[in-house]
Amino acid sequence: MDIERFKKQIDFVLEIDKEKEIYRQTHISDYKRQENDAEHAWHMAIMIYLLREYANEKFDVTKAMMMALIHDIVEIDAGDTYAYDTEGLKTRAEREKKAADRIFSMLPEEQCDELKLLFNEFEEGKSPEAKFARVMDNFQPLLLNDLNGGKDWQKHKVRKEQVVARQNKSRPGSQEIWEYTMRLIEENVQKGNIKND
Amino acid sequence: MDIERFKKQIDFVLEIDKEKEIYRQTHISDYKRQENDAEHAWHMAIMIYLLREYANEKFDVTKAMMMALIHDIVEIDAGDTYAYDTEGLKTRAEREKKAADRIFSMLPEEQCDELKLLFNEFEEGKSPEAKFARVMDNFQPLLLNDLNGGKDWQKHKVRKEQVVARQNKSRPGSQEIWEYTMRLIEENVQKGNIKND
Repeated sequence: MDIERFKKQIDFVLEIDKEKEIYRQTHISDYKRQENDAEHAWHMAIMIYLLREYANEKFDVTKAMMMALIHDIVEIDAGDTYAYDTEGLKTRAEREKKAADRIFSMLPEEQCDELKLLFNEFEEGKSPEAKFARVMDNFQPLLLNDLNGGKDWQKHKVRKEQVVARQNKSRPGSQEIWEYTMRLIEENVQKGNIKND
Repeated sequence: MDIERFKKQIDFVLEIDKEKEIYRQTHISDYKRQENDAEHAWHMAIMIYLLREYANEKFDVTKAMMMALIHDIVEIDAGDTYAYDTEGLKTRAEREKKAADRIFSMLPEEQCDELKLLFNEFEEGKSPEAKFARVMDNFQPLLLNDLNGGKDWQKHKVRKEQVVARQNKSRPGSQEIWEYTMRLIEENVQKGNIKND
């Protein structure tokens, strides 16, 4: 064992523990409390594996799972930007790039490069892996929100066009799941959970 | 899309959300609060990927990551059994088998069978994937405990022989990580974080 190399890896492993304290707008089931990034990533990785049959294209499952597991590590420095926070979204990319530089650089060089590539590929959303991982990034909170009677949508007075715009980003990854999300949105509009104006 | 099949998968995905409320004895960094099973599993999966070079044998990374991600789902029904709870450990296997039957059966049949196999393989600890996933199941809380100045060991008055016995289970998966854990235990004995009697 190259102990210097190992210590870099362990420092990174302990640094990312902080992701467990980055809270999202979405609540866990029964609306008990806000979900954190580590929980969201865990959920996404399992969904990628179990729902892979619905992907539009064949993809590398391990790669997509790793993307999901690491995609929010940058929020340790950059914070969580709510999907409907127009102001925050303007500076998000820059804040997250700086964070990726600092945090991934704790790893040995080739692992740093690999994780940065994975993170950037996820953000670009063009590869089959990124497209499917991003479906889960949109679909997982939608499912929780629907389960919780739309309380988060109500709280933030979210409009149908906003939810549709976000879920439309799932279409390149999975036509089938996207179609399901459109029905789920419509049901929540009917129930008054999502505003229709 | 076979909507009945999909709904089974979604019901399972929402059921496992409850794992986010199963708290372990280990605390997250800065001892802020107890860690939950979903966070622990997320951490383990990333560690399996990043530390795979230290495994004694070649193994299937996706399979080991999925094992890590799902190995504590049974605790939704069975609860967390502390590694040093002698009484609880006696009934653990039976409680967890019942839980696996109920929860994994929410999935379509072949996915239920697959996840049960993965879970049982992890518990048996004989395959290369199970052996390496189990290294992380032992090593991840050890790292957090060391980072937190051994507060959890002190709280539970844990003795060196107990910690060594647990970490010895990592040796079949990674001789190198096991050697590192033995040094870490010794350091914590020296500091008085772990009792030596």
